[in-house]
Amino acid sequence: MIGEPATVMSVAEAEDFALRILRGNGLADRQAEPIARAIALAEAAECPSHGLYRLIGYVGSIRSGRVNAAAQPRLCRVAGSFLRVDGDSGFAPAAHATGASALIEAARSNGIAALALTNCHHFSALWHDLDPIVEAGLACWAFTVGQCIVVPHGGTRRLMGTNPIAFGWPRSGEKPFVFDFATSAAARGQVELMGRAGKALPEGWAIDASGRPTPDPAEALAGALLPFGGYKGSALSMMVELLAGPLIGEPTSREAAALDNGDGGPPPGGELLIAVDPAIFNFGLADDWQQRAKAFFAEARKQPGVRLPSDRRYAAIQRSERHGISVPSALLEELKKLSPVVGTA
Amino acid sequence: MIGEPATVMSVAEAEDFALRILRGNGLADRQAEPIARAIALAEAAECPSHGLYRLIGYVGSIRSGRVNAAAQPRLCRVAGSFLRVDGDSGFAPAAHATGASALIEAARSNGIAALALTNCHHFSALWHDLDPIVEAGLACWAFTVGQCIVVPHGGTRRLMGTNPIAFGWPRSGEKPFVFDFATSAAARGQVELMGRAGKALPEGWAIDASGRPTPDPAEALAGALLPFGGYKGSALSMMVELLAGPLIGEPTSREAAALDNGDGGPPPGGELLIAVDPAIFNFGLADDWQQRAKAFFAEARKQPGVRLPSDRRYAAIQRSERHGISVPSALLEELKKLSPVVGTA
Repeated sequence: MIGEPATVMSVAEAEDFALRILRGNGLADRQAEPIARAIALAEAAECPSHGLYRLIGYVGSIRSGRVNAAAQPRLCRVAGSFLRVDGDSGFAPAAHATGASALIEAARSNGIAALALTNCHHFSALWHDLDPIVEAGLACWAFTVGQCIVVPHGGTRRLMGTNPIAFGWPRSGEKPFVFDFATSAAARGQVELMGRAGKALPEGWAIDASGRPTPDPAEALAGALLPFGGYKGSALSMMVELLAGPLIGEPTSREAAALDNGDGGPPPGGELLIAVDPAIFNFGLADDWQQRAKAFFAEARKQPGVRLPSDRRYAAIQRSERHGISVPSALLEELKKLSPVVGTA
Repeated sequence: MIGEPATVMSVAEAEDFALRILRGNGLADRQAEPIARAIALAEAAECPSHGLYRLIGYVGSIRSGRVNAAAQPRLCRVAGSFLRVDGDSGFAPAAHATGASALIEAARSNGIAALALTNCHHFSALWHDLDPIVEAGLACWAFTVGQCIVVPHGGTRRLMGTNPIAFGWPRSGEKPFVFDFATSAAARGQVELMGRAGKALPEGWAIDASGRPTPDPAEALAGALLPFGGYKGSALSMMVELLAGPLIGEPTSREAAALDNGDGGPPPGGELLIAVDPAIFNFGLADDWQQRAKAFFAEARKQPGVRLPSDRRYAAIQRSERHGISVPSALLEELKKLSPVVGTA
């Protein structure tokens, strides 16, 4: 927010800050380290809604005892191409770290494989979960059920979560093609931050509790957000509900909301990752799949107004690595209070 | 189109009509039968853009010799969870019929599996391809690259196809949840039919050849269609381009367009199907995934304005089975000319 007093810190400092807050609240290192990394990367990507701000919710759910601060995720191979991690009621990043290598190996062997992260709490950006899998040369999807606040197309009250979809595609000689977006018109975190900044929501984002359109972030958070793209986005949101809910034995966003204790942290829920190996899919074929994809992206870049989904993020991360990140000083002071250790450091 | 003279026929008659036209043009039965079925089902679903109207293009591409009328698709298991059908330059429905059972078997064994239909020509609705897989109790996606006519978000000229995404989810005791939509603001067939009916396109559907918004179907077909849902729909369209193109060794829509000879039929291209078995994914878990999904759909139906994606189609099919389908008589006369056998029957 322009004009707001801000503190500049390096990405490494942000990661260390997050780590100390989480450790200071009793979170085991295997849980805290991947969260701190995800938070720092979100700040580097200039995506503050998934950055340090999230520490408030993380700490809230540790303190309320809803999340197991000492959780030890366990990996199980259920079928040849299907792996499941039981997150032991901890956070999703540790569950992801437990299963990612096995997912990569299964996809390389069988062409396609899936990994379900279950019995955990998801609160970070999905694109970060794709990183190790796409870096291994695989294409990958990730789906998770967000907090229940989205109205189905044509409806008047919340039924689905913000239900993001992320997809990554490996590119030779350059960073991967990655997108990650809420299937709601806006992410919940965006609406919260606009509320904190006193801004009005654009048309088509939200309805109030009585089902009427509203530009007021507070009314929207008490009402519902609309899906993006009308009935098509609504159908995709329902698909995510099924994939990250019943398909992997986890609650739908509505069921998860019923279990929420209002501590500001993430509800219980899972995540589904699906990885495919383009090298296996192209086995025995004459054409070069990487060249074919490269030609497609080159054509897209010839149109001046077109920005590929990941370009903005890579530019932001490069800027942040060079110049550091800028955190509202008021937020930083609020966060420091979350841990006596950090507050006095 | 209201007021236009129409001929009523049964769904079975429509299938037989399509079959005779295709056979009359020398198409082998193993190719013609699944196409005729797909066309009749599209008519039954009141989706004329994928119905009998498509015979013009099918016949055009047989007559031009671009499609192999005697094609014999071949199935190959490339890896444990990945199957590939070489369509032998025929149409996609015969390639699909060749691989569907093997896909079901692989998904049931390994939890997840994929089937690539390659070296074929896709011209029918995707939802029909999900039917046998979802009826077998699996969830399933289908992706195919449509004709190159969609501009990326922020751009001024065509780069992607209409690139539909279809998803099906099995439900106990009722028909499956299925959606199937173009990632463009509208399907190309819709725009063509609106052009034939002299109708104007809604705002946000299309741009002309110079990149300016246009309500004129002819200008849109010479220019480009917009993706649905802004940058999110554009990203999904690019994903489909990668999945049904480079991932399975098939051309992108732009590459396919360069091979088009203007016979009105489908360009060469493939289709990707991914199937997952919810029973495997839920193996060893306590909750009933079918009940959990059922509760979700029941909640959706409690909101009067909400229509689940597949509801309209099922109602249409039921109506058509009872009362027959209505085909514009002018179209029927045009189609009869495609085969002397049918014309004199």
